[in-house]
Amino acid sequence: MSAKIPVIEMFGPTIQGEGAVIGVKTMFVRTYGCDYRCSWCDSAFTWDGSSKDKRVMMDAEEIMSGLTELGGNRFDCVTISGGNPALIGEGLSELIDLLHERGIKAAIETQGSRWQDWFLKVDALTISPKPPSSGMSTDWEVLDSIMERVRTSGKGAHSLKVVVFDDEDYKYAAKVHHRYPDIPFFLQPGNDNVTEEGDISTRLLSKLEWLFDKVIADPDMNAARVLPQLHALIWHNKRGK
Amino acid sequence: MSAKIPVIEMFGPTIQGEGAVIGVKTMFVRTYGCDYRCSWCDSAFTWDGSSKDKRVMMDAEEIMSGLTELGGNRFDCVTISGGNPALIGEGLSELIDLLHERGIKAAIETQGSRWQDWFLKVDALTISPKPPSSGMSTDWEVLDSIMERVRTSGKGAHSLKVVVFDDEDYKYAAKVHHRYPDIPFFLQPGNDNVTEEGDISTRLLSKLEWLFDKVIADPDMNAARVLPQLHALIWHNKRGK
Repeated sequence: MSAKIPVIEMFGPTIQGEGAVIGVKTMFVRTYGCDYRCSWCDSAFTWDGSSKDKRVMMDAEEIMSGLTELGGNRFDCVTISGGNPALIGEGLSELIDLLHERGIKAAIETQGSRWQDWFLKVDALTISPKPPSSGMSTDWEVLDSIMERVRTSGKGAHSLKVVVFDDEDYKYAAKVHHRYPDIPFFLQPGNDNVTEEGDISTRLLSKLEWLFDKVIADPDMNAARVLPQLHALIWHNKRGK
Repeated sequence: MSAKIPVIEMFGPTIQGEGAVIGVKTMFVRTYGCDYRCSWCDSAFTWDGSSKDKRVMMDAEEIMSGLTELGGNRFDCVTISGGNPALIGEGLSELIDLLHERGIKAAIETQGSRWQDWFLKVDALTISPKPPSSGMSTDWEVLDSIMERVRTSGKGAHSLKVVVFDDEDYKYAAKVHHRYPDIPFFLQPGNDNVTEEGDISTRLLSKLEWLFDKVIADPDMNAARVLPQLHALIWHNKRGK
């Protein structure tokens, strides 16, 4: 009997807009449920109850069929995001194995609040601890333990990404980077309004320039990388892109 | 006696806008002279004679001093671009060694028309063969030989990048990707007007969306990555950013 995964949406192929795998063609699977409630979450429908009736329980084979129906032969990477996919154990472990059997890479985005053994099987593991503006607080002990385990796995497929909305967030990002100096580190400007309709690219680019300027001036950020959310520049706040 | 390098400009720190090292904080050194004359070159002042009197012959130590004067302790990466830096032998070999002595990484951009032994010492080697719209033609024998040598070096620090302006360029890009399937491959939309003043981000994003759509629909591009020129989105056609 295969384990079930709560899925709230699947879409793609599209282009990964963020982090270490920016620009990669990928399908997306979004799991339902989160242990966080970030004030500016751009996917609050995965945890705020508004879309709970759209959640479907699926096993790895069913997800694979759904992805193939959507993407045909036009992808070789699947990104699993949430919500927090690290709330799910066996089901995602089985999905990652199935993807690998088919020659497909698995990318994961999670905030670093929970460990799962399948982290070590992932081809691109993005750990994205949430800064003060989220309203959440970081359990450093848990994060230390996660970073230690991925670091010693030797696979080198992991990175840290911090979203920055304001100066306080930037200080938090610097703390994260300083704490795990050997882990590839990405900074990303936050989207201050995730419900605004129409073209938001000018606002986002101006926030990116603000973050560029801070990093350029800061000798403690020489090894950091600063990237936008490409999908938001192109498709704005539209869902399922 | 140290070898001299023809330098047309140095600037930074800034953020690398393109390719495998997108988002990395870096200084730029631009060498003078090119064996190509691409119709849409965004740095034609490096070869068209218009800035020849600004060219300065500098050795590695002098370049290092200039970079330190500009960037202080605010960088740990230097990108050497052109023109075509692969026209230069001993001088750049010495510069790369000096950067490494100081704990600084060296990134290079070149079109793959000439080999230099120092390619193998570079931390991020971007080979960017030019598509038909450039008006240039690719010497496949030379490119094959370069890709074979970097591939067998085992350093894994190399990538291919093709700029795409139109459907013919896209076909050329597909040919490059097909010819070297194991080399990380990046596609980048071309900037159709490198002298336009003011904010060009809307035009560039629309071209990026065009390229996204082509890659998304194309099963032969599953492993390609599509990225914009971030610096052009932020700083437009401004020089020295």
